[in-house]
Amino acid sequence: MKTLILHGPNLNLLGAREPDVYGSMTLDDINARLIELGKELGAEVRCLQSNREGALIDALHDARIWANGVVFNPGGFTHTSVALRDAISAIQIPVIEVHISNVYAREEFRHISLISAVCEGKIAGFGWKSYALALRALVEG
Amino acid sequence: MKTLILHGPNLNLLGAREPDVYGSMTLDDINARLIELGKELGAEVRCLQSNREGALIDALHDARIWANGVVFNPGGFTHTSVALRDAISAIQIPVIEVHISNVYAREEFRHISLISAVCEGKIAGFGWKSYALALRALVEG
Amino acid sequence: MKTLILHGPNLNLLGAREPDVYGSMTLDDINARLIELGKELGAEVRCLQSNREGALIDALHDARIWANGVVFNPGGFTHTSVALRDAISAIQIPVIEVHISNVYAREEFRHISLISAVCEGKIAGFGWKSYALALRALVEG
Amino acid sequence: MKTLILHGPNLNLLGAREPDVYGSMTLDDINARLIELGKELGAEVRCLQSNREGALIDALHDARIWANGVVFNPGGFTHTSVALRDAISAIQIPVIEVHISNVYAREEFRHISLISAVCEGKIAGFGWKSYALALRALVEG
Amino acid sequence: MKTLILHGPNLNLLGAREPDVYGSMTLDDINARLIELGKELGAEVRCLQSNREGALIDALHDARIWANGVVFNPGGFTHTSVALRDAISAIQIPVIEVHISNVYAREEFRHISLISAVCEGKIAGFGWKSYALALRALVEG
Amino acid sequence: MKTLILHGPNLNLLGAREPDVYGSMTLDDINARLIELGKELGAEVRCLQSNREGALIDALHDARIWANGVVFNPGGFTHTSVALRDAISAIQIPVIEVHISNVYAREEFRHISLISAVCEGKIAGFGWKSYALALRALVEG
Amino acid sequence: MKTLILHGPNLNLLGAREPDVYGSMTLDDINARLIELGKELGAEVRCLQSNREGALIDALHDARIWANGVVFNPGGFTHTSVALRDAISAIQIPVIEVHISNVYAREEFRHISLISAVCEGKIAGFGWKSYALALRALVEG
Amino acid sequence: MKTLILHGPNLNLLGAREPDVYGSMTLDDINARLIELGKELGAEVRCLQSNREGALIDALHDARIWANGVVFNPGGFTHTSVALRDAISAIQIPVIEVHISNVYAREEFRHISLISAVCEGKIAGFGWKSYALALRALVEG
Amino acid sequence: MKTLILHGPNLNLLGAREPDVYGSMTLDDINARLIELGKELGAEVRCLQSNREGALIDALHDARIWANGVVFNPGGFTHTSVALRDAISAIQIPVIEVHISNVYAREEFRHISLISAVCEGKIAGFGWKSYALALRALVEG
Amino acid sequence: MKTLILHGPNLNLLGAREPDVYGSMTLDDINARLIELGKELGAEVRCLQSNREGALIDALHDARIWANGVVFNPGGFTHTSVALRDAISAIQIPVIEVHISNVYAREEFRHISLISAVCEGKIAGFGWKSYALALRALVEG
Amino acid sequence: MKTLILHGPNLNLLGAREPDVYGSMTLDDINARLIELGKELGAEVRCLQSNREGALIDALHDARIWANGVVFNPGGFTHTSVALRDAISAIQIPVIEVHISNVYAREEFRHISLISAVCEGKIAGFGWKSYALALRALVEG
Amino acid sequence: MKTLILHGPNLNLLGAREPDVYGSMTLDDINARLIELGKELGAEVRCLQSNREGALIDALHDARIWANGVVFNPGGFTHTSVALRDAISAIQIPVIEVHISNVYAREEFRHISLISAVCEGKIAGFGWKSYALALRALVEG
Repeated sequence: MKTLILHGPNLNLLGAREPDVYGSMTLDDINARLIELGKELGAEVRCLQSNREGALIDALHDARIWANGVVFNPGGFTHTSVALRDAISAIQIPVIEVHISNVYAREEFRHISLISAVCEGKIAGFGWKSYALALRALVEG
Repeated sequence: MKTLILHGPNLNLLGAREPDVYGSMTLDDINARLIELGKELGAEVRCLQSNREGALIDALHDARIWANGVVFNPGGFTHTSVALRDAISAIQIPVIEVHISNVYAREEFRHISLISAVCEGKIAGFGWKSYALALRALVEG
Repeated sequence: MKTLILHGPNLNLLGAREPDVYGSMTLDDINARLIELGKELGAEVRCLQSNREGALIDALHDARIWANGVVFNPGGFTHTSVALRDAISAIQIPVIEVHISNVYAREEFRHISLISAVCEGKIAGFGWKSYALALRALVEG
Repeated sequence: MKTLILHGPNLNLLGAREPDVYGSMTLDDINARLIELGKELGAEVRCLQSNREGALIDALHDARIWANGVVFNPGGFTHTSVALRDAISAIQIPVIEVHISNVYAREEFRHISLISAVCEGKIAGFGWKSYALALRALVEG
Repeated sequence: MKTLILHGPNLNLLGAREPDVYGSMTLDDINARLIELGKELGAEVRCLQSNREGALIDALHDARIWANGVVFNPGGFTHTSVALRDAISAIQIPVIEVHISNVYAREEFRHISLISAVCEGKIAGFGWKSYALALRALVEG
Repeated sequence: MKTLILHGPNLNLLGAREPDVYGSMTLDDINARLIELGKELGAEVRCLQSNREGALIDALHDARIWANGVVFNPGGFTHTSVALRDAISAIQIPVIEVHISNVYAREEFRHISLISAVCEGKIAGFGWKSYALALRALVEG
Repeated sequence: MKTLILHGPNLNLLGAREPDVYGSMTLDDINARLIELGKELGAEVRCLQSNREGALIDALHDARIWANGVVFNPGGFTHTSVALRDAISAIQIPVIEVHISNVYAREEFRHISLISAVCEGKIAGFGWKSYALALRALVEG
Repeated sequence: MKTLILHGPNLNLLGAREPDVYGSMTLDDINARLIELGKELGAEVRCLQSNREGALIDALHDARIWANGVVFNPGGFTHTSVALRDAISAIQIPVIEVHISNVYAREEFRHISLISAVCEGKIAGFGWKSYALALRALVEG
Repeated sequence: MKTLILHGPNLNLLGAREPDVYGSMTLDDINARLIELGKELGAEVRCLQSNREGALIDALHDARIWANGVVFNPGGFTHTSVALRDAISAIQIPVIEVHISNVYAREEFRHISLISAVCEGKIAGFGWKSYALALRALVEG
Repeated sequence: MKTLILHGPNLNLLGAREPDVYGSMTLDDINARLIELGKELGAEVRCLQSNREGALIDALHDARIWANGVVFNPGGFTHTSVALRDAISAIQIPVIEVHISNVYAREEFRHISLISAVCEGKIAGFGWKSYALALRALVEG
Repeated sequence: MKTLILHGPNLNLLGAREPDVYGSMTLDDINARLIELGKELGAEVRCLQSNREGALIDALHDARIWANGVVFNPGGFTHTSVALRDAISAIQIPVIEVHISNVYAREEFRHISLISAVCEGKIAGFGWKSYALALRALVEG
Repeated sequence: MKTLILHGPNLNLLGAREPDVYGSMTLDDINARLIELGKELGAEVRCLQSNREGALIDALHDARIWANGVVFNPGGFTHTSVALRDAISAIQIPVIEVHISNVYAREEFRHISLISAVCEGKIAGFGWKSYALALRALVEG
């Protein structure tokens, strides 16, 4: 089992950015924990972050060759990117949408996701553990 | 740690009802597995299903006395009940919203939840495992 | 052929309630006539009214065991209940939506039904005869 | 008792057109059955189909002189014609709106009728029997 | 000066149709008065009514050859016909939109006109005198 | 017969203000012509302009004592003033809404009038002659 | 004079539930004060709370037999229940809608009431005194 | 305790204006009764009416110096004035919004208030007694 | 290969009507070129124009017997006719929607087509060549 | 260079009114600084505040005679006044819209301005310095 | 004549991605055919694909120097990119929007294009031949 | 004081692109003037332009380390980018939104900014001087 953890825009600032909303762990901390959890669950975990929509599309395209599934936090692109939605539809592997914060308790434009309909499932609101739950869901499937 | 698993309307038909959408396990099967998982995680799990909004409100009210958290699948009430939202706000314990199916891949009225904003988090699309992930999130929280 | 006639909220007041809108026959009068019509058509007719959404859901669930079809006037729940819609989807027998008044000649919120899309058909505006026409449609199929 | 059965646009193709939606009976078949049913019920039934909005308006205008009621399937004009609505308002005889298919289980623009508010009642979803039920409603009043 | 008075659908029923809304004069009465008023003002007045959108389009097209202006009551087509709007744009002579009743005091869908933006002006609410005022406006320009 | 011609905000600039939209006559020119037309028609005409909503409300209130009707161009208040609408409803004399330009060929917010539903009728698009037509409508009634 | 004080869902938690929004008095405290005020005003006051829409409908139906009026706080059902609206329409006695908090200063979905249009009047924002004011309005009527 | 009773546009016509909606008491009658009630409750009551939004803003500004609270019927400005809302926010004393009629049973644009969110509370539908209830609420606070 | 070129309302005025929008070729010119192009491509081309929605429906119905495909410019009916949409669905041959102008650079109501979803494809903005491209698409398929 | 600084409703309370939103400087303080800045820039600055829409319209009308430009903070009228928009269109001098607070970080109704489209430009969010920047923009133009 | 064929996001997966929607030809196949068609028509064709909005903007900017026109399939950016719209407006050469599938027969969000209004024309629904038709339109102009 | 001037998509074409909307100065001209103005004001000014959303996000992230504030013209991303909004929220330094043209006098989709709510302030409509005013606002703060 091989898995891509894909982080969208601004998540490189985790820990520094609005810690009351996004928690105090850095992206490296989170990735380390997920790799470790992957090992426990018998899954190889690779992590990638980009602030560029195109790079995220490329990563999804690549994943269809080497990975069995994707845990994807699309960040602000969640609400605006048809291109990412199309990329998820285009690849043949399951993608799980995750969010660190409970997006439904924030601004109204965050309640709409262009991505959810083509994902396997959605997990939001559990801090960095949203990723961990999704990874488990993917591996234990 | 004590946890309420609360099932909303029509979930008593699980297994019989539209198995392509909701899977073939019965509610009893699911409850049994969740109780077992609770034991593994060191949590007492009680399960309750009702087709009545009022009974669900009562169960939430009661839970604030005996439970540390709730895993709640509000079924069709997700999209229509301010009273359940108010009940969740009124009690002081974390509630996690779960859905068996990926509601975002279904009719548009299922994309809107009156409940999410006052819940701890949301998990949807993983079949009966949506409950299991939520239970883990609550206990390991 | 066995049929459930299911009456939703406030229909127990028929005859007393706004007779210019709903006519002067009581619910018992209507039920009596429908049972009689059922006999003519060779169908067993059972009647049930409740002001509780949950009781109506239960009645629909039960009907899938003993009945071949349902004539359902959801009253005010027509416009607000996803849970009843899901109940109708969940059972495998035809349900016909009926309304005593012409809901389209009344307030705009009455023009939208959450129920219609999962029913066999819809009959509105013929007073108590809406039920009679629906019963005939069900039996003569 | 004299009744007009009025068929709107594209209904001349019945039997040939999308049989899974509209059934396999031709318009002539349906008309023949309705005339027969009329005889049973003691009503003279005349049938007319047109693809032209203006011809349907004219037929409604004429009906107010010779007929006691109209069973009207406005087809695609249901959702777009204020002129037909005004024609129904203008004549003094009851008009019943019928649809072969359950319009509420189809595209969203079919859920809105400009006609319903000025009709006596509405029957939809029973195939050709929608007409038969409406004819009975009109004659048995 | 030559003028077309063009009446849309259902106006042939004037006098008979809902006299509290549309008054008790027949279309012939109105036309007679307008022809007479035309004479006073030195204008030749021709009148035409049709329930067919296509015939009204044709009449507008013809008018661009023989007439200097049009007084047009589009009836129910006011709110639904882009084709009539395009016909008015296409001819090079002024068209005035008139309504017998005050459409703004009636149903909300009557408040929107697809025609007004391409007309010279609009007169509504003065009974048959709406036509007379429009004719005067056209002739006295 | 006594008539108030009531001009709303910015109409004091007529002649100077955007002459391609509003024409080159000044407000005094228009008032002079309307007084003259009033004489021809046997009506006393008084004219008043104000940029203040409150002064216009007062003028309407006064008019119910001394006048038989009002020709009212509410200018920009047309689209925003419930208070003026209520003033028109409150007085017992007919009010006709006029506009110099064809408001329907301009910005979309000008298409909605809060005033029209409580006026006798509406005349728009004929330059200063909109007032003249309205005055005639009022006097010839 | 006999009066029903009817409390909707979650109001049983008053005092415990979000005291900054709903105050610190319990429901029993409030009921005691209203009964006392009733005595002062010469009115018999009975109090009832339920979390069930159906039980509230039943209570309204009953009230039409024994009571002269109802003070009703529909809680979360305010915004979602056509069935309660219909129950209020169906009984012949005045009903006053009350809210403890100023619903207009809270979430937007709380600004819309399906109930208000069929009530006698509405009082919101005065804490438990909203009930007291309504009781007085009913008795002194 | 000093209180301003502030009446908005058209309320000077009370008694004369649409008595079926607004009752037959004049504004002077109402003011007299409120002054008397003020005396009973130990409060000085001053009354002011204006048809001018600006004068109402000024009165609110003044009240923050001499008064302890305001009972405000904004009339038609309720639905359109951000400036009045800002004035209420700007002063430090409680303002209660009142309406004579049940605005929720009237035109839809009357259901929206720009004022309510910044007021202490709202009372509507009790005729002149809406003011009396509000005065009591303010004084007994 | 046999093809119908079907022109909707107002297209008979081509060349005369707003040449900056629609070009200076007449309908006969265009038809002549299309017949010629048909010959080149080995296709028989028949052309028909009507201002009547019903006649266009009839032409589509007929085409299903004699033609292999249709190039259809529905003109103003594009945005308003469900009946034409249903006619296209009802026949079993491909229909291509064409527009002379770029409808997306014009009024907003022209951006919505009721027809597109049931057509093979859509070509807009190339003047008379929109037809030529569509004819080629149909023939070369 | 002569410039009008025009302040809309409630700005007379600056300093006293919600200082966290609007700052602690009084209107006189601000005006004094702007006059001084005007001197530096070689511009004569006159200041005017009114709570009355009509007085603001008059001031704009006057400015077209004596001033070369206007810096205008329309306050709450920003979102509701077509009459002020029309006044700005009617005069031939540049007007700059300013706001003290960042209106886009406040209630949603403050995000819409009826004024902006006819102004030269817009400056918001810099406290009293919004005026200073606008004055500089006007003078250095 | 020099032409850019510009492919947006996910089109690199053509052939592999959802072949029932997008066909089984690869992007290289399509480009080869278009280059060949270009030769036939006497046009030099260069092809470029990118998943990055910024790279597409750059390509459009470059094209204004070396190309006479662009055939552009913006993929998922069609519905979300104002920046691409602005790029098309900014360059002085014609751009034709193409889509492989009939976007109007798919999800509703695909019906809206931010690009169309600034393009020369639009061609959708003809598989890879949409490009061929557009190329021909551009070259034969 | 160190400041980033950040230019979004298509601004590299300034001078060449639609000079009637955006003026005739090139981006280099503008940057030169802003650097000079920075020197006058005692601020170091660095300028950066990119057509890529991701590069702009990166630049904002970097700025939080070296700069005291940002003047940002997000171009077409203003209306579509949640990711840029999140980037601005994430960094701790003030950002001012600027636009060269008056976006409120252009297409309606340009009236909505996803960015404004998290910026310090907004300046639009002053050509290249919008930047200069913003720079001054930032430095003089």
